[in-house]
Amino acid sequence: MAVYTEVSDSELEAFLADYDIGCAVSFKGIAEGVENTNYVLTTERGQYMVTLYEKRVDPRDLPFFLGLMDHLAERGINCPRPIHARDGNALRTLAGKPAAITSFLQGMWPRRMTVHHCGAVGEALAGFHLAGRDFALERPNALSVAGWRPLFEGSRRHIAPELDRELAGELEFFEENWPTALPAGVIHADLFNDNVFFLHERLSGIIDFYFACNDFLSYDLAICLNAWCFEPDNAFNATKARALLQAYDKVRPLGDDERQAMPILARGSALRFMLTRLYDWAHTPPDALVKRKDPKEYLAKLRFHRSVGSLADYGL
Amino acid sequence: MAVYTEVSDSELEAFLADYDIGCAVSFKGIAEGVENTNYVLTTERGQYMVTLYEKRVDPRDLPFFLGLMDHLAERGINCPRPIHARDGNALRTLAGKPAAITSFLQGMWPRRMTVHHCGAVGEALAGFHLAGRDFALERPNALSVAGWRPLFEGSRRHIAPELDRELAGELEFFEENWPTALPAGVIHADLFNDNVFFLHERLSGIIDFYFACNDFLSYDLAICLNAWCFEPDNAFNATKARALLQAYDKVRPLGDDERQAMPILARGSALRFMLTRLYDWAHTPPDALVKRKDPKEYLAKLRFHRSVGSLADYGL
Repeated sequence: MAVYTEVSDSELEAFLADYDIGCAVSFKGIAEGVENTNYVLTTERGQYMVTLYEKRVDPRDLPFFLGLMDHLAERGINCPRPIHARDGNALRTLAGKPAAITSFLQGMWPRRMTVHHCGAVGEALAGFHLAGRDFALERPNALSVAGWRPLFEGSRRHIAPELDRELAGELEFFEENWPTALPAGVIHADLFNDNVFFLHERLSGIIDFYFACNDFLSYDLAICLNAWCFEPDNAFNATKARALLQAYDKVRPLGDDERQAMPILARGSALRFMLTRLYDWAHTPPDALVKRKDPKEYLAKLRFHRSVGSLADYGL
Repeated sequence: MAVYTEVSDSELEAFLADYDIGCAVSFKGIAEGVENTNYVLTTERGQYMVTLYEKRVDPRDLPFFLGLMDHLAERGINCPRPIHARDGNALRTLAGKPAAITSFLQGMWPRRMTVHHCGAVGEALAGFHLAGRDFALERPNALSVAGWRPLFEGSRRHIAPELDRELAGELEFFEENWPTALPAGVIHADLFNDNVFFLHERLSGIIDFYFACNDFLSYDLAICLNAWCFEPDNAFNATKARALLQAYDKVRPLGDDERQAMPILARGSALRFMLTRLYDWAHTPPDALVKRKDPKEYLAKLRFHRSVGSLADYGL
């Protein structure tokens, strides 16, 4: 929820002069997107999105992200397609920031998540994983197990002793028991409901590839399990989980190793989002323009997955 | 810079069912607008704006605002035109808030204001004043002289003794000397640069009528003098002022009384914006999602107008 960088009309005009998409007739900063500044651009040719990459995105990662979107769009995945300037580059500079134009994706993200949505997300995630198989670039997941301890250490002074003990125990558990050999590839890593668009009840596209990286494919599914299959009161909804997992499995069948790993992957994913939220909570100045997300939600999810007795709990 | 109210997909669908503009294919909260929540809505028929009126707008004023936009649009003023639902009403309810759909205005507001813009604004403001002459509804200006003292009293504990003395003196001056008989009518009362759109260097429309009210027409011009004719370092730009005033005068000739009153109107307008900014500064929680505007900018403008010796300083 933020516009971090104002773009002047003359800067925009100069920027668009290098593209073949016409002149701007409207340019509005939108409230979506926490990491970057996003504008809806309307030209004589149609609607586009313009993203300015702010300091939380490492510019060295941008060729991976934009290349991935190109790669996916070419393989028929509904996602924003980078618009290349006349010099062939999709990554350029606007108002002093790295910036890119992408196609505009129709649809709205579902505020209330249903079983129907969960099935569609499972299918789309599997399609994304298959399409990503031959993507040439690699980007390690900085927010996998090795990245969790620094987040924990940076947040400790803000948490109560009991929670501190619980999280320290979790970290030790994951550092010892995290899987090492599951099918891996490019994962989205942040497929929350505000990153999935629906139009007339059909999934119309997925957006926001700025956490995409290489990791276990089933870890991506575990992230979705947490993002899509809990109710607002943090109760797990097994019907939604079944819809998500079965739809995924239909497109990309899960191996036995991946099924067996689901509880630890889901529990680890819950810890990952709990820790980044905790860290942001501790380090976001209270007058920032960004809404801080509640870490407690993910603590409840973590505890649920720790208590899972059987894969049947997930509908597997 | 805010989305105060989230709208669910099902709420939006039910809302749009009462209109003849098709179904939503995109709905994005935008970062513009401090008082209300604004969404860009794209349907199969085109682009629209959806505004949800938040608590800073008195719902009893909405018929005035929406009626004014209807009235102006009918008279050829480029402004958002309220879209009426099938029952004839433009004012309806969305997500529990009063809400309206308006047409989408092309253009962008100028981040860097030029002499050319100032002339166009003067011309458009005069056209707006003429078009508003036969508007039937009335709304007194709650932010004229009588409204300034409460703002001052509510901000006093936050200001230094010297500034307190200066502002108290200003208030007394205005309470004794404010004009009582100048040509009056509907004024915009907030025609800042982010409320004026340009497309290919031509003024394409004016927006945001949520401060519109009945007051002296020349006071509206004085507000524009402050909003458009100072440089970022708060230096007055007489060339811009001349362009603004002469272009206005060409469409709606200023009377001698209005010309003579310009310094006091401009000085009063500066105090008005200084006081609302001061008040907001003092009363906005530091973690609010709204960027607070600097009151000092308007203190500098106030002092400039107090020092004005001759109308020639404004290009009159």
